[in-house]
Amino acid sequence: MVMAKKGGTEETVGMTYPKSKFSEWFSEVIAKTELGDLRYNVKGFIVNRPWSVLAMEAMYDLYERELQRKGHKPVWFPAVIPEENFMKEAEHVEGFVPEVFWVTHAGDKKLENRLALRPTSETAMYTMYEKWVRSWRDLPLKLYQRCQVWRYESKATRPFIRGREFHWIEAHDVFSTLKEAEDQVKEDMGITESVMHQEFGVPFMFMRRPEWDKFPGAVYTYAADSLMPDRKIIQQPSTHLLGQNFSKPFNIRFAGKDGREKYAWQTCYGPCIWRIMASVIALHGDDKGLMFPFSIAPVQAVIVPINPKNDRKLIRFCEDLKEELFDSGMRVELDSSGETPGFKFNHWEMRGVPIRLEIGPRELKEGSATLVRRDTGDKKKAKIKTLLEVILKEGQLLTDNLRKQADSFFRGSVRDARDWATLKKEIPKGGFVRIPFCSMMVEGVPCAQKIKDELHGDVRGERADRKEKPKPSDKCAVCGKKANHIAYAGRQY
Amino acid sequence: MVMAKKGGTEETVGMTYPKSKFSEWFSEVIAKTELGDLRYNVKGFIVNRPWSVLAMEAMYDLYERELQRKGHKPVWFPAVIPEENFMKEAEHVEGFVPEVFWVTHAGDKKLENRLALRPTSETAMYTMYEKWVRSWRDLPLKLYQRCQVWRYESKATRPFIRGREFHWIEAHDVFSTLKEAEDQVKEDMGITESVMHQEFGVPFMFMRRPEWDKFPGAVYTYAADSLMPDRKIIQQPSTHLLGQNFSKPFNIRFAGKDGREKYAWQTCYGPCIWRIMASVIALHGDDKGLMFPFSIAPVQAVIVPINPKNDRKLIRFCEDLKEELFDSGMRVELDSSGETPGFKFNHWEMRGVPIRLEIGPRELKEGSATLVRRDTGDKKKAKIKTLLEVILKEGQLLTDNLRKQADSFFRGSVRDARDWATLKKEIPKGGFVRIPFCSMMVEGVPCAQKIKDELHGDVRGERADRKEKPKPSDKCAVCGKKANHIAYAGRQY
Repeated sequence: MVMAKKGGTEETVGMTYPKSKFSEWFSEVIAKTELGDLRYNVKGFIVNRPWSVLAMEAMYDLYERELQRKGHKPVWFPAVIPEENFMKEAEHVEGFVPEVFWVTHAGDKKLENRLALRPTSETAMYTMYEKWVRSWRDLPLKLYQRCQVWRYESKATRPFIRGREFHWIEAHDVFSTLKEAEDQVKEDMGITESVMHQEFGVPFMFMRRPEWDKFPGAVYTYAADSLMPDRKIIQQPSTHLLGQNFSKPFNIRFAGKDGREKYAWQTCYGPCIWRIMASVIALHGDDKGLMFPFSIAPVQAVIVPINPKNDRKLIRFCEDLKEELFDSGMRVELDSSGETPGFKFNHWEMRGVPIRLEIGPRELKEGSATLVRRDTGDKKKAKIKTLLEVILKEGQLLTDNLRKQADSFFRGSVRDARDWATLKKEIPKGGFVRIPFCSMMVEGVPCAQKIKDELHGDVRGERADRKEKPKPSDKCAVCGKKANHIAYAGRQY
Repeated sequence: MVMAKKGGTEETVGMTYPKSKFSEWFSEVIAKTELGDLRYNVKGFIVNRPWSVLAMEAMYDLYERELQRKGHKPVWFPAVIPEENFMKEAEHVEGFVPEVFWVTHAGDKKLENRLALRPTSETAMYTMYEKWVRSWRDLPLKLYQRCQVWRYESKATRPFIRGREFHWIEAHDVFSTLKEAEDQVKEDMGITESVMHQEFGVPFMFMRRPEWDKFPGAVYTYAADSLMPDRKIIQQPSTHLLGQNFSKPFNIRFAGKDGREKYAWQTCYGPCIWRIMASVIALHGDDKGLMFPFSIAPVQAVIVPINPKNDRKLIRFCEDLKEELFDSGMRVELDSSGETPGFKFNHWEMRGVPIRLEIGPRELKEGSATLVRRDTGDKKKAKIKTLLEVILKEGQLLTDNLRKQADSFFRGSVRDARDWATLKKEIPKGGFVRIPFCSMMVEGVPCAQKIKDELHGDVRGERADRKEKPKPSDKCAVCGKKANHIAYAGRQY
């Protein structure tokens, strides 16, 4: 859609692709709403612009608050990790070292020992955990950091989905017993539900990953799989039982109540804010553009003056209202540009602002505002006195509505296949295909490989959040041998 | 002070050094209150522990909120900058390249072009500004990012004062006119006042740095000089008029209202949260340990049950209170450990928690809490219903009190010297010595060098926040030639 701007230039505003053309829509919405810029001159790195950063900062706040409520505390570890630290845990080295960026020089000096830019912080943090954990009284130790990590991805990068730099949270917890560590994995799943699902409106299922796909060094990995509008699966936060796999090489021991020294039990959890942003953009947007849940919107309410007579009093009224809402902690914008109201409506709708406040001569006279919802287009008048309350209420209703829509899309995404012929037909349709499967251990690799090679699909694992068992007579949908698992397969990002 | 812990172990709690032994006190308080850990195995890098991170996160929040109020928006740029970007501005290269950490490899591959870990982001951001700034309508462009920067410091590092990695905010603004850019420099000074001074209680004077000490590439640099308890000067945020020194090599041009292409005018501003933390620790602490202004305290209120009969109801009362205060947005802790009340009082006092809430059988019965201030030790009872309000009010009074104490220390720190003999006597006493000075241009270098070599002092520049002019008869306190400036000199961190 081409619209004349008052300034005299013409500008393409509005989306040209419908959301049904998801791949094009996704790229267009990122560019047009200025979420990110892909033209930075290092391959695989993007610039995150204010419209995404404001949202991701709000996402960090909500996530961190929930982590703190559950007893976690924040730390900031260095971004560089000595190579020797990596060498301590064999699987971890093997998993991460191929994609590490290495710092080798400082000024014109070659460093004696090269430093990794952290791809993940286990090997940085656990060298200190060795020093901090002495006795059962120091446990549990529950720490997290918000930070960037860097990985030299060989796969094609896409903004907010896969990059060589991304912004996440990593929580690293230490316990006296295996039981407490296993409970932490459950707590992490609960945090994912209460933040990513309830607040951000992103639905998921937790999968226990097959042995060949777990986090390098973990005993097991539970990962939240969500779905994109093109019905391809996207991995969201994962939580890992590390057991004593790191505490032994990193020597994290404590004196128990009985006075005896034991190795500690560990977990880690990694919600990637940058990647969750991809799901937020993709799941909630529509043909008009973005749609943000209220609590994470970069701007929660925009004030648009309808001011045909250019009344100075009306502008002042809007300015006062903006100030008042800002001071109450809201992210609010006043659009006093010279564009027409219609232009402004489209502009802010495309950017996904949940609530529009129209203020015209009538509202000025009444001391009110007309409130318009981005999701339903519903209009409602409210007195300025009660406006904050009404905005918060409508904002919550909008969030609930977006979540319900995403849920209903997600719920319909699981189909069954009991044999290869059905699987072959179902995988290309996207979503999750539930199959009887032979083995999640190394014995299952050939079957998983066949799904990958012939159907471009992946075995995501079995449900971690509920028990699903095959019947004794079930056969693996790939090899036809006895099925020991109900697995989920599908095409993934 | 050695105190018995109930658990049976003995632990040294409480400070052993008085604040008058500042250097020892500063190291001790960082270790004992667990602000940071210096044992990470990369030289010059520290681990920032929860007790400092919680405070610094609150400092970020307040700073960012004020920047946003003044029209700035947040961005996240990549942490790596291609070498070629640095090469565009000659003074900037020369100033920063000697301390750059270089990424040269990824996995087992040598990168074609090495990448700098950002020491500061001008050369990352301005390559994008070239693309974003097209017309006068795109201006002003006011962006900031919170991030880490890395510099291979050759000087001795000290936690929160000087490190090879630090956490800061950098704001980078672009304008159509020189006048607007100069106004931005003034606005930056105002933001420093309203956040660093009003909220964090850290007093300062803005100095216009001599030519030989300005930011590499700047037209001029205004830097906030504060003072540590040992009367050594510490540089806090600086703001720089970049003029067109970067817009020309980075080709940041805009079409003016008259349709003609012009180079833009720029400023940048860099409050270093990590370093401001050093001033907060140092200025407000006392012989007992830390003392935090209320709005940035890692824990703002601690609840200590006084529960001789181990009454379950009393504990539940405390838990409910904690939940309620947490939900209202407060950072609150309940100390339900097995230690004695006296032990707990000392523990939280050393950590600088502004408000202690004592809940005993009497308070339980009354539905009240006894509130104790960290700074004055004053006690006050408040009903639970009004408690939040009372805490916020007492918190503000505490903050005001800390700021006033710091101000009164700072105010007395300027002395005059009109000749070399006096200067020689005054510099070793610390604080600021105000002198008539010959030149802030290259002609003044020998005089500044003499102060450095013979007195271990530095010329910090002339006041940027007020006009101070020498009398026509004034002579430079070092060389005796005509004085053109009133300069400030002193020993610095």
